[in-house]
Amino acid sequence: MTTPPPARPGMTVDEVDTPALLVDLDAFEANLQRMAREMTGVRIRPHAKTHKCAVIGLQQMALGAVGMCCQKVSEAEALVYGGVSDVLVTNEVVGCAKLQRLASLARRAHIGVCVDDAGNLDDVAAAAAETGVTLDLYVEIDVGAARCGVTPDQAAVALAKQAASKPSLKFMGLQAYHGSAQHLRTPAERKAAIQGASTKSAQAKALIEKAGIPCPIVTGAGTGTYRLEAASGVYNEIQPGSYIFMDADYARNQGEGNRPFDDFRHSLFVLATVMSRSAPDRAVTDAGMKALSIDSGLPTLADGVEAEYVSASDEHGKLLLGASARGIKLGDKLRLIPGHCDPTVNLYDWYVCVRGNRVEAVWPIAARGAIT
Amino acid sequence: MTTPPPARPGMTVDEVDTPALLVDLDAFEANLQRMAREMTGVRIRPHAKTHKCAVIGLQQMALGAVGMCCQKVSEAEALVYGGVSDVLVTNEVVGCAKLQRLASLARRAHIGVCVDDAGNLDDVAAAAAETGVTLDLYVEIDVGAARCGVTPDQAAVALAKQAASKPSLKFMGLQAYHGSAQHLRTPAERKAAIQGASTKSAQAKALIEKAGIPCPIVTGAGTGTYRLEAASGVYNEIQPGSYIFMDADYARNQGEGNRPFDDFRHSLFVLATVMSRSAPDRAVTDAGMKALSIDSGLPTLADGVEAEYVSASDEHGKLLLGASARGIKLGDKLRLIPGHCDPTVNLYDWYVCVRGNRVEAVWPIAARGAIT
Repeated sequence: MTTPPPARPGMTVDEVDTPALLVDLDAFEANLQRMAREMTGVRIRPHAKTHKCAVIGLQQMALGAVGMCCQKVSEAEALVYGGVSDVLVTNEVVGCAKLQRLASLARRAHIGVCVDDAGNLDDVAAAAAETGVTLDLYVEIDVGAARCGVTPDQAAVALAKQAASKPSLKFMGLQAYHGSAQHLRTPAERKAAIQGASTKSAQAKALIEKAGIPCPIVTGAGTGTYRLEAASGVYNEIQPGSYIFMDADYARNQGEGNRPFDDFRHSLFVLATVMSRSAPDRAVTDAGMKALSIDSGLPTLADGVEAEYVSASDEHGKLLLGASARGIKLGDKLRLIPGHCDPTVNLYDWYVCVRGNRVEAVWPIAARGAIT
Repeated sequence: MTTPPPARPGMTVDEVDTPALLVDLDAFEANLQRMAREMTGVRIRPHAKTHKCAVIGLQQMALGAVGMCCQKVSEAEALVYGGVSDVLVTNEVVGCAKLQRLASLARRAHIGVCVDDAGNLDDVAAAAAETGVTLDLYVEIDVGAARCGVTPDQAAVALAKQAASKPSLKFMGLQAYHGSAQHLRTPAERKAAIQGASTKSAQAKALIEKAGIPCPIVTGAGTGTYRLEAASGVYNEIQPGSYIFMDADYARNQGEGNRPFDDFRHSLFVLATVMSRSAPDRAVTDAGMKALSIDSGLPTLADGVEAEYVSASDEHGKLLLGASARGIKLGDKLRLIPGHCDPTVNLYDWYVCVRGNRVEAVWPIAARGAIT
């Protein structure tokens, strides 16, 4: 059921079949380099939930990343089989079958996983022991997202102690990701949220170390807040994902000093074709909800096209055209900036990587659909 | 990049890896049979944009459907190669490469397509002529959705005349689908919308026939309104898709006579595992936005579980547990009813088809990701 690639290297962008997922390589590479250049005081462990692609992960590691993060065992499989040597599943893995798969991966790569439950920790340890491997173990603490994770108090200490007692586990530290902080719009809101997360993380780390257990790593952070965690003095590893692509929703964050949040450039686009011009001020594209995720808002138009993407149905995207865009014709191709890059990437099998107007490469999104 | 099947026939539901897309075969078959039994006065051409699966399409045709609809050439390819002998692309197909693919399919099956533009009609005719095939041609009219389609007046007549003049095309009639009417909540609203659509369709058909061109088919309708089109005296073909599965959003429609809209049963579920019980009233499942589409609302809980799915992140679904659900444990499996079935199906490679508690079959979703 893998779809055929919509392009091949050497084609011009106009020849690419649509809808297609484009990566502007110049912008993409600039984003990778900027993160690597600026974040020198902390370990970078980029999140592969964004790109689901070992080809990209290896480029991040070549620029100094210590490994990858991902959310699912099936993502870890795609990364390891694609050559990534160090993967942390920043999530709980529940169930014997999944834990056996995870432990098996540890024969081929350095693997870590998170827990927030004593019974699950026993299961992780048993799977590792049965497989004859050691897994890195992180205790997830709830630093504000009210999702997974234990409270940053004796509950965390208890899990750390339990982990330290297991020969098949190596207790590494704390997973302390504040997801909902990433898209708080103002720098002040994000700063307050990450101050709270840092305080909680510092407290849990201190309690664990007071109990005599080394807690070397505090890991977390995303594209919206990575500078804050890096400067916190508590976090020593960051997990940014979306920075490689940027999306329309991250572009709505405000940056420091009344500037836009422009640390990174948009490098991910959905190429769409105009398939109906049924009214003078309306164009309908072939890219709807099955071509881009609208959970964080509708896409915006790239390239200064004066048009608004006003509604998405399953296979159609309706544009309201401004005066300067009324000349758009049937068959014209437009670049859309997805509202949310991660679930949009998950809809595609291939990145069509372009340099200028030329397709340079087509990369497989090997973990597309990898949700188990 | 096709994911491995999460189950095999003979397993119990509890052994299925998660997240997985379940089809309750008893409910699914009842839905297929009900539509076939009740809609005897019109042709049924079910929409495969919902299921993207020839295995299902062939079952619908065995119950009397005249063929399938779909929205994309790549979907038509998956259907035809899976054995479906008659496919109407209820959409405009723009661009020479796509039109060549469509025309090639007409060597293996009966193929139709829609137009709303004179230049595009010329391109369709040319592709068919070059391939040496005949394509059925439908003029799409705008009956209220303000999306694709020409106005139901001389614009439609002009395209019908143009189509009738092309030896490689067979003008069949009107595509007259009112998408936005499907989810109007009250029967009165839906009735008013489809009365309007029927009036417009009747007008266009009369004008075309007055110009001396037979217009045998008026096709449209969906799961929310199919009885109305069928009773209109104008439509003689209906295109329901979601009726086979039902989703949480369709369940919010009101039926006739102050009853719920209960023509069909929920047969599609996302099976999810509880992966965190980090608070007494909270459970986190492994099914988030990459496992179900939230464009039409969050999923609901099946099986009477007293819990609310309150937020979806990419890989997590957070549940707020009512008193009777506080006993839910880590590792428990729950069935979720997706908010919107079509884009949810598009996230999966496999249907896990269950009868009672037993997996009976695993069907490939061959057109998953088929958006070109």
